[in-house]
Amino acid sequence: MQISELETPALLIDLDIFERNLKRAADYTRQHGLRLRPHTKTHKVPEVGRRQIESGAVGLTVAKVGEAEVMLRSGTPDLLVAYPVIGASKLRRLAEVARQTRVTVALDSEEAARSLSTAAVEQGVGFGVLAEMDVGLGRVGVTPGPDVVALAKFLQSLPGLSFEGITFYPGHIKKAGEDGASDEARLSQTVRGVLDLLRHDGIVPNIVSGGSTPSLFDCHTVDGLTEIRPGTYVYNDVNTVVSGACTFDDCAVSILVTVVSTARPNQMIIDGGSKTFSSDRLVGSTALSFGRLVEAPGAVFCNMNEEHGYVNLEKAERRFAVGDRVRMIPNHVCAAVNLHENVYGVRNGTVEVTWQVEGRGKLQ
Amino acid sequence: MQISELETPALLIDLDIFERNLKRAADYTRQHGLRLRPHTKTHKVPEVGRRQIESGAVGLTVAKVGEAEVMLRSGTPDLLVAYPVIGASKLRRLAEVARQTRVTVALDSEEAARSLSTAAVEQGVGFGVLAEMDVGLGRVGVTPGPDVVALAKFLQSLPGLSFEGITFYPGHIKKAGEDGASDEARLSQTVRGVLDLLRHDGIVPNIVSGGSTPSLFDCHTVDGLTEIRPGTYVYNDVNTVVSGACTFDDCAVSILVTVVSTARPNQMIIDGGSKTFSSDRLVGSTALSFGRLVEAPGAVFCNMNEEHGYVNLEKAERRFAVGDRVRMIPNHVCAAVNLHENVYGVRNGTVEVTWQVEGRGKLQ
Repeated sequence: MQISELETPALLIDLDIFERNLKRAADYTRQHGLRLRPHTKTHKVPEVGRRQIESGAVGLTVAKVGEAEVMLRSGTPDLLVAYPVIGASKLRRLAEVARQTRVTVALDSEEAARSLSTAAVEQGVGFGVLAEMDVGLGRVGVTPGPDVVALAKFLQSLPGLSFEGITFYPGHIKKAGEDGASDEARLSQTVRGVLDLLRHDGIVPNIVSGGSTPSLFDCHTVDGLTEIRPGTYVYNDVNTVVSGACTFDDCAVSILVTVVSTARPNQMIIDGGSKTFSSDRLVGSTALSFGRLVEAPGAVFCNMNEEHGYVNLEKAERRFAVGDRVRMIPNHVCAAVNLHENVYGVRNGTVEVTWQVEGRGKLQ
Repeated sequence: MQISELETPALLIDLDIFERNLKRAADYTRQHGLRLRPHTKTHKVPEVGRRQIESGAVGLTVAKVGEAEVMLRSGTPDLLVAYPVIGASKLRRLAEVARQTRVTVALDSEEAARSLSTAAVEQGVGFGVLAEMDVGLGRVGVTPGPDVVALAKFLQSLPGLSFEGITFYPGHIKKAGEDGASDEARLSQTVRGVLDLLRHDGIVPNIVSGGSTPSLFDCHTVDGLTEIRPGTYVYNDVNTVVSGACTFDDCAVSILVTVVSTARPNQMIIDGGSKTFSSDRLVGSTALSFGRLVEAPGAVFCNMNEEHGYVNLEKAERRFAVGDRVRMIPNHVCAAVNLHENVYGVRNGTVEVTWQVEGRGKLQ
């Protein structure tokens, strides 16, 4: 099928760029002796997970048990659930996953640890566990210092669990360059301090897991890190470009849309809004801008309703007519992909593969 | 099944409130001689559409052909596609829908009209059409005045199309009360002016279609209006409360979530973020607030990532522990529902019905 035959809106993945993104991350981690365990929240497609493993990833990361169940179909030897799993029925499902592949869970509370241990014993399976610490994002994770040691010891004491190490998410480090470098230095110091404390108590983590896409290619500067979990890097998006971690040439994703109205002066309406792109804003900016129009980057995707995108053409390089099809790079690809039933892998104008977004809506 | 047995996050619909909301809108429109044609974008569930028809709606509204295909299963006698349908393959699918129920399309361009007419003739079906005008939102629609007359005449001239009237969306009227009242008066004047112009050319529309949820119960004050298309009113949400159109007692929707971390002081993390609630902001406010916590309305849902909700507890009425389950009313129910595979109709603690969100992701 040709791209021109697709109905819109349709989320396209440029396969040449996608493959280059896979290779670049794999080469980088190999070169620096880091293990790559990509977060699959970005794509939610088992086949893409398989391609990540094939290109050098040691395993995959998910947030939800439902995503873990889907990602089993990638054939991954290893799944990290980077999220506390709470609730008896979810834990039973996770045990079922653990019968089929190795499962490690990141958590930050004794409650989550205790119920995971109970499930492991009751279901006769084993789980790896990572103690999560907060390195500045202020989301989940205990405070770096004695609390990490206490949590690690508690995890070591529980039956059915195998303490594998520590984890953190440097999601507050958005920008590369000067600020990013000093953020990375601070992070390095924090991690080193915690590793020293653990070692003092005779605890040597197998895994020190961190990393995000904006900080991807600086991860080797963080002392003690053994593996990273970038997600967005497979496709990239406007926010990743803004973070300085890639250029628009590295964005594999764009959403093909149709112009459905030009009734208002200097404006066109495209057939995708918040239910196609998500309403995620540009990170670090108060400007209303929901994507980058490939055919005329001077246009501003300035507003949206659920199914309408408002594109201001005052500074656009050209004009468009009702029926024209254009491509828009979304701000946040993970949120956009999650709204589509299928994504289309394209090369040279041809749809080479259709991937069902099997993990979409697997919220539980 | 009891609510306590549901895995989280789970989108709950309080059936008592839902039924009251259906009845209130039906009673209001009946009382004022208006026809009710609810927009199904809010719920995307054929069975809910059927309930709307059963309680007095004359037909249903959709935005996309894919939604029209799904909503056929409601048994509706009539579907309004409140969106220009562009593209040969979509028009073929729409003709298929028109073989099964009466279909009317709202549009604002000669291009959209011409291709719809061509499809009608080629496929041997008929479509109703409405001329869309812009009454202030600045989205789609021609300018009220001679342009509406010109578009109406053009629509009358095309084979396969039956001109039914005019339509507009007063989405810029967000607030009831003083401002709202003067907005409604201006709208009335605009509509009256257009109807006069049309009448002068011998055109008498069968349908004058407007209405939205925030302005729902003021629609009778708009001269010449014959039908309204509210969507959100079935479930309501925080934004509808903020608009003044309902109270929290009228919100049928809440999302059941679990507390997964309390590691940071004065904060809890719930197991739903932008992939559960959408990242839609509070309308008319710059405050970051993504929902209302039923159990402690003083808490602030102040930040979110894809699967993490950050709830600031500084001003909360109580504290919560890991594993606690709480309910959060979303800002924008239409965007939230679209992220869930199923929603759960509940009454007295029991899950009475599970509705699959069949229209979810029907973007084309």
